[in-house]
Order: sequence, then structure tokens, then C-alpha cells
Amino acid sequence: MIEVSAADQVLTASANVNLLDIYAALPAGLYPPFPPAELPGGLGGLVSRGGFAQTFFFGAEVLGVTFIAPSGRRVVAGGRTVKNVQGYDLTRPFVGSFGALGRAETVTLRLRPGLAFAHRVRPGRLEDLPEIRARFLWQDGDTLHVCHFGHHREVQAVMASFGGEAAAGTLDYASRFPGGVGVGEGGSLRDRRFGWADGGAAPPMPALFGKVAASL
Amino acid sequence: MIEVSAADQVLTASANVNLLDIYAALPAGLYPPFPPAELPGGLGGLVSRGGFAQTFFFGAEVLGVTFIAPSGRRVVAGGRTVKNVQGYDLTRPFVGSFGALGRAETVTLRLRPGLAFAHRVRPGRLEDLPEIRARFLWQDGDTLHVCHFGHHREVQAVMASFGGEAAAGTLDYASRFPGGVGVGEGGSLRDRRFGWADGGAAPPMPALFGKVAASL
Repeated sequence: MIEVSAADQVLTASANVNLLDIYAALPAGLYPPFPPAELPGGLGGLVSRGGFAQTFFFGAEVLGVTFIAPSGRRVVAGGRTVKNVQGYDLTRPFVGSFGALGRAETVTLRLRPGLAFAHRVRPGRLEDLPEIRARFLWQDGDTLHVCHFGHHREVQAVMASFGGEAAAGTLDYASRFPGGVGVGEGGSLRDRRFGWADGGAAPPMPALFGKVAASL
Repeated sequence: MIEVSAADQVLTASANVNLLDIYAALPAGLYPPFPPAELPGGLGGLVSRGGFAQTFFFGAEVLGVTFIAPSGRRVVAGGRTVKNVQGYDLTRPFVGSFGALGRAETVTLRLRPGLAFAHRVRPGRLEDLPEIRARFLWQDGDTLHVCHFGHHREVQAVMASFGGEAAAGTLDYASRFPGGVGVGEGGSLRDRRFGWADGGAAPPMPALFGKVAASL
């Protein structure tokens, strides 16, 4: 299931929907908070890991989530529009909890407008990259990827400062993670937050967060 | 206590610091996620209520919070820079929880750059206002307030579309709320989220959020 409201600039989808299928379903001129690259677990996996490659706060782009807590309880958190997301918020703790709060059923994302979109690649490493205002940055082996959308001139400026050449089409990284995608240094992909490695390892969880998880 | 890092664009302050004292301590060209208006409870009160007058997602601007949970436990949530705010996040649930998760001790806010800043007023009501890209919008009686910071041309454009005249100085609304500020229709102040009324009433809390609060 993928439901899009161009007027409200939101998208609600089943957690098992593939990331590239979301790209294929986007209304003209609206973009989600992830680049066009497939990763294991589809949308639910992405949200559970707190996103991929973004340079902004991913949690603010997840307006709502319905999830099954470890107790089996079904939790409906957040809303379906920007305006009705208020306090008492259980959406944000779910985002990036690596499964500790359970598994998502449906996710509502904010979509943001872009008159232009570009995705470029060039040789390089994240730690050598000068500051750049791209929405998405990641490294695959010794290749850097940059993705950005927005006003035409802004996208042109970001791409000019990055250099490189246009990336060809979409990317499917899912097959690199037969054991599930997790954090670690063994894999080829990394972004500003984590190295992403096969095996599904989660970052260490604070004990207090475990108490919250157990309360749901 | 107010500690500012202009390089990291963050500010950490005791929860009891007044909002206007934060404005007085800002580095040149950086602004907090609230307008220059005093409200009861200072910074801690503001965060507990989920902000005032903002048109963006306030939770994303609170990078970290240290709070005393209802159990008496001291919780250190989030981080002090944009980059180290990741998953397992107890900051966002605190923001806008109207005291359900306890009371803040210190708060770390993101500051955002603005080459220009403007604050204007004119007669009017929020429900009659056409869409406007201001960061802060509120209504005091029959007077509308708009505040914005950013690039010079952007601020000029927002103010031109609003009209009105420059507001004179800062505002102290704290004395209007002898019983504490809460949500409701009885008061003179309102923003896009709530009417703000004397007496400190909180919006209804979902039962599950109460379980989370009890777990901390």
C-alpha cells in the first residue's frame, strides 16, 4: 500500500514497501527523505535504522508510524499531516530504534518539493569531502554519491561544488546485506552517521531506552 | 547558565533561564527556535509545551535535554551537537509532553543563522491569514505578529507579504499567566497549534504515553 497526498505533501505506505517503489509512486516535484537506493527491509527497515545518507534530522520527516511493540501491542503514533504532529510523541523514539520498540506496519513520511533533482558520483571518501549542502551523501567503496533536490540554481550549485558525473539510474544495495543491514565497519557503504555492514548489528542501546521499550 | 557555541550553532542553558535572556546572549547572526517574547517557565516551560508560535517542527530544534523524571531519576537525553543526535531518542518525547515526563534541568537548542531579522505587527486573525513563510506567527487579541530571520531578501519578502509595521522591542507575556500557561480558549494568545490560556492546562494525554512516563 502506498497512499500519496500531493496537496498535504505526505506519503503513507506499508512498512514492507520497497524504497524504489516509493520513488516510482512520487507525485511530480515531491521527494522523500531518502535517496533512490534500495536497502533491506524497505521503508520499515529504513525508519527503524533512522534513515540512510541524509544530512538533516531524519526523525522530523517521519510524521507518524504504526508499529507492533515487543509486547504485541499495536501502537499508533504521530499523525498524517504536518500540522497535527504535536506533543506526547512516540514516533520519534521509534525512528532509529533498530527494532527495540518493535516493527513498523505503516509509515507516514513528509514529502518536500523540488523543482530539480540530481544525483552524481565521483571517486573520493567522506572524510575528505569539504562541507557541501547536499541532502544526501554517502560512500560506496571508494566512490562518493551526492543527491540533492530543490530550486534549479541551488541544485546546480551543489553539483558544481561536488564535481563528478551524473549517476546512471537507481541503485539496489539490498543484495549486499543477506544477513540484514546493520552498523559496523565491515561493509562497503557508509554515510555521515554509520558504516553499514551485513548482519544487522544495532548500536548499543541505553538501558533506560530498554525500559521504555518494555513499557509499550 | 547559558553556554553558546557559535561554531557548532548550539546553545545549552538551564531550564529556568528566561527566554529574553537567551535572546540577549545570542551570538551575532544566530537565532533560537522561538520569537523574542517572554513566557512563564522560561526555556524549560517552553520546551515542555512544545514551543510557541513556530511554524516548523520544534522538536527537531531541541538537540538534547536533561530532565528529572517523575520517579526522581535524572535522564540525560540527546546530544549537544547536530551530528551526535542519533537513535534511541528520549529528547523528542520530552518536548511537548507538558510535564508528563518530568521537569527539565538543562536544554540544548540548535541555533540557526540569519543575516536579517524582522518582527512586524498588524490587526488581523490567524484564521484569515493567507499562507506566509514566516518562522513565527501568533495572534495577541486582534493583533497578528510575524517574526522571521534568514537572508535579507527572504526576510524582506516575508514582511512585504505580511504588511503591518515594525514591532517595538521585546514582549513580556509572562504576567498574563499567573496560574501557568496552558492550552485553552480563554486567553488572548494563540498560535497555529493552540490557544494559550492561564491555568496551565495540558492537552489530553494518550494512556500509552503515561505508561512510557511511568517507565522512566
